Amino acid sequence: MRYSALIAGLGKIRGTSPLIVNLTNYVAMTPSANALLAIGASPLMSSCVQEMDELVHAASAVLVNIGCIEERQLEAMTVAVRSAASEGKPWVLDPVGAGISGYRLDSSKLLLGMNPPAAVRGNAAEICALASGRLDSSHSRGVDSLIGSGEAQDCALSLARQYGTVVCVGGAEDFITDGTRSVALSGGSVLMTRVTAMGCISSAIVAAFCAVSDDFFDACCSASRLVSAAAGEASLKSDGTASFAIAFIDELSRL
Amino acid sequence: MRYSALIAGLGKIRGTSPLIVNLTNYVAMTPSANALLAIGASPLMSSCVQEMDELVHAASAVLVNIGCIEERQLEAMTVAVRSAASEGKPWVLDPVGAGISGYRLDSSKLLLGMNPPAAVRGNAAEICALASGRLDSSHSRGVDSLIGSGEAQDCALSLARQYGTVVCVGGAEDFITDGTRSVALSGGSVLMTRVTAMGCISSAIVAAFCAVSDDFFDACCSASRLVSAAAGEASLKSDGTASFAIAFIDELSRL
Amino acid sequence: MRYSALIAGLGKIRGTSPLIVNLTNYVAMTPSANALLAIGASPLMSSCVQEMDELVHAASAVLVNIGCIEERQLEAMTVAVRSAASEGKPWVLDPVGAGISGYRLDSSKLLLGMNPPAAVRGNAAEICALASGRLDSSHSRGVDSLIGSGEAQDCALSLARQYGTVVCVGGAEDFITDGTRSVALSGGSVLMTRVTAMGCISSAIVAAFCAVSDDFFDACCSASRLVSAAAGEASLKSDGTASFAIAFIDELSRL
Repeated sequence: MRYSALIAGLGKIRGTSPLIVNLTNYVAMTPSANALLAIGASPLMSSCVQEMDELVHAASAVLVNIGCIEERQLEAMTVAVRSAASEGKPWVLDPVGAGISGYRLDSSKLLLGMNPPAAVRGNAAEICALASGRLDSSHSRGVDSLIGSGEAQDCALSLARQYGTVVCVGGAEDFITDGTRSVALSGGSVLMTRVTAMGCISSAIVAAFCAVSDDFFDACCSASRLVSAAAGEASLKSDGTASFAIAFIDELSRL
Repeated sequence: MRYSALIAGLGKIRGTSPLIVNLTNYVAMTPSANALLAIGASPLMSSCVQEMDELVHAASAVLVNIGCIEERQLEAMTVAVRSAASEGKPWVLDPVGAGISGYRLDSSKLLLGMNPPAAVRGNAAEICALASGRLDSSHSRGVDSLIGSGEAQDCALSLARQYGTVVCVGGAEDFITDGTRSVALSGGSVLMTRVTAMGCISSAIVAAFCAVSDDFFDACCSASRLVSAAAGEASLKSDGTASFAIAFIDELSRL
Repeated sequence: MRYSALIAGLGKIRGTSPLIVNLTNYVAMTPSANALLAIGASPLMSSCVQEMDELVHAASAVLVNIGCIEERQLEAMTVAVRSAASEGKPWVLDPVGAGISGYRLDSSKLLLGMNPPAAVRGNAAEICALASGRLDSSHSRGVDSLIGSGEAQDCALSLARQYGTVVCVGGAEDFITDGTRSVALSGGSVLMTRVTAMGCISSAIVAAFCAVSDDFFDACCSASRLVSAAAGEASLKSDGTASFAIAFIDELSRL
C-alpha cells in the first residue's frame, strides 16, 4: 500500500502538471522551482499582492514558506491564504524559523488562523513553537532544530488537532500525523542537513502531492518517501554537499 | 553566414565584457549571472531605483524580466527603460507570464510603450498576450506555454511591427522576426523545459548580443543558436535535469 | 603557524556551528548558505527589520553585503549593525559595487560610521572607493574590479586605520591588513572570476571565522586560505564554470 500511493500521486503530477504557486524565501526559490519541475509539476514563484488572487485562482495548490518573510510578503501571503479558502484550494505552510522571532511566530499564527492548511511541514523546533505558541531559543540555532522529530510528536499531534491539518515533522525520521493516523518514516541522508533549502523543497513537494490528492495525510507520506528515496540514491553518487544537491534533483527527475 | 555572426558576436562579448544590467526575477538571478559570466559578459543585478540612472549610464545593455514583478521593481524598471532611451542603450524585455495576470500584462505594456526595446523574448503564450493585449488563461499554465512557437507567428509579426522591435518566441523551435525578416531555428533539448529560468537565461544572453551588435535580429539569432548548441551538448552529458543545467553553463563557458 | 590557525578555526566552526546572520544580495543567497553549511556554520538569511534585533542577539556574527541593496534592506542593515554594536557581536561588510553608485557608497559609509566592523572584504575597486570616499568609474565594470589588489594596498591600509578594522582586498592575490600587520596570499583559481558570488561567499566565510576568533586578522587569513585551497582543488576537477562552482562547495564540505 505504501508505495502505491506514491506511484499513483507521482503519475498524476506528471500527467497533469499541477500549477503550484509558491510564496517562498529567496534561498529556496531556484532549488524549489527545479525540484517541482523535476517531478513534473509547474512552479510559479510570486509574492506580488496585486496578482495573487488571479494566481491562486489558476493554481492547484499554494505553498507559503516564511523563511525570508517581510511585511510586503506577509501581505501577499494573507491574500493567498484567504483566496485559497474561497477557491477551495489546498495550501501548505512551511513555518521556517517560527521559534526564532516574534514576527515569524505571529505571522504563522495569523495565517493558520485564517484558513486551516492542508499540511504544515517543518522541523521539530518549528512545530513545537507553533503548538505552544511560544518562542523557545533552546530548541533551535537559527533555522536548524536542536531537537529531533521524536521529541516533537506531542506537539505535532496537538497542532494537527488544533487546526484540523496534517503535520509533518522533518528530521532523520519524518513524523507525520493528522491527529488520528500517525507514522514515522525513516530514510534519506544526513547530507540533507548540510544543503540549504532541503526542507523547503520537501514542503514544495508536499504541496504538489496535495494538489493531486484529497487525502493530505497520504500526500505527506508520499512526499516524504519520494524525498527520502531520491536523497538516499543521491548520497551514493556525490563527492560532497553540492554534488549531492545536484544528484538529488537528478534523481527526482528520473524517478 | 549563420554561425559567422554568432562567432563574431561571442568574440566581441569575450573581448569587451559588456556590462549587462539585469532587473530580473529572484529565481533567475543566480543562473542568469552565471550564464552571462560564462559567455564573457559582466552581469549586474539591481532593482534599486536610487541607483538605476547611474547603472544604465554605465551599462552596455539592460535586461528587464517581469518574472517576480512587484510595485517597487516596476518603479525601477520604468526608470531603467526611460534611462535606456535617453542614453541610447538597447534594452530587452522578457515578459514572463504576461498572459497570467493583469498586473504583468499592464506592466509589460507600460514599459513597451515608453521606449521600444531592442528585442522581446518570451514563450508563445506571452508573445500572444502582448500582441493581443488580452489575458488568455487557455494559453498557459503558470509561466509555461501550452501553445507552440509555430502558433504564435502571427502574434510575433504583429508585435514586432507594432513596436519596431525584434520578437523572439522561444520553444522547441525559436521563431524570430523583426516584422520583415523571419526565421525558425531548431535545436536545443527538451530538458530545457524541465529546468527553471532557461528562458530567462536565453533573454539575458540576447541582451549580451544586443550590447555588441546594432543588428538586433542577428543578435537574437546568435543567442538562440548559442543556447541551442550548449543545450544540445549538455543533454548528452547529463544524468537528469540538475546535471543538465550544470553542463549547460559549462558548455557556455567553453564555447 | 599559517595553517594551524585555519585548522583550529575550522575545527571550532564545525564544533560549535556558529549562527551567521546574513543580510545579503539575492544572487549570493543560495550559494552563500550552501558554503556556510559546507564548512559547518549555521546560516540564516534575513533582511526583515522587525526581527533583526532578535536575530543578531542569537547570532555569533553578522554579514552585511550590499550587492542588491534597496531602501528597506538598508533599514534592516542599520538595525543589524547597531544591534551588533550593543550585543558586542562581530560584523563583516562586503561593499559590493561601492564605487559604482552614490547609493552604494553612501550606504557603506553610513554603516561603517555607525559601528566599526570586524572586517571589510571587497575587491580593489570597492576598497579604493571606500578609502577615498569617491565614485571612480574607471576602476570597475559593474561589480568587477578593473584594478588588481596590489594597486589597492594604500587604500586598504588607509581604510583599516580609519575604522580600526581588518581589510581584505580580494583578487588573484588577496591583500589583508589591519593597518599594522599586512599579508598578501596567493592561490585560488582564475575560474573564481567567472562564477557569480565567489567574493560574496568568501565574505560569508570571513564572518564565520570571525565568529570563532577574537583575532580578526587571523580570521581573514584563514578564510582566504580555505577559499584558495578549495578553489585550487576544484579547478582540477571541473569541466567549466558551473561544475567548478559545484566542486568548490564539495571541497569546502570535505576539508
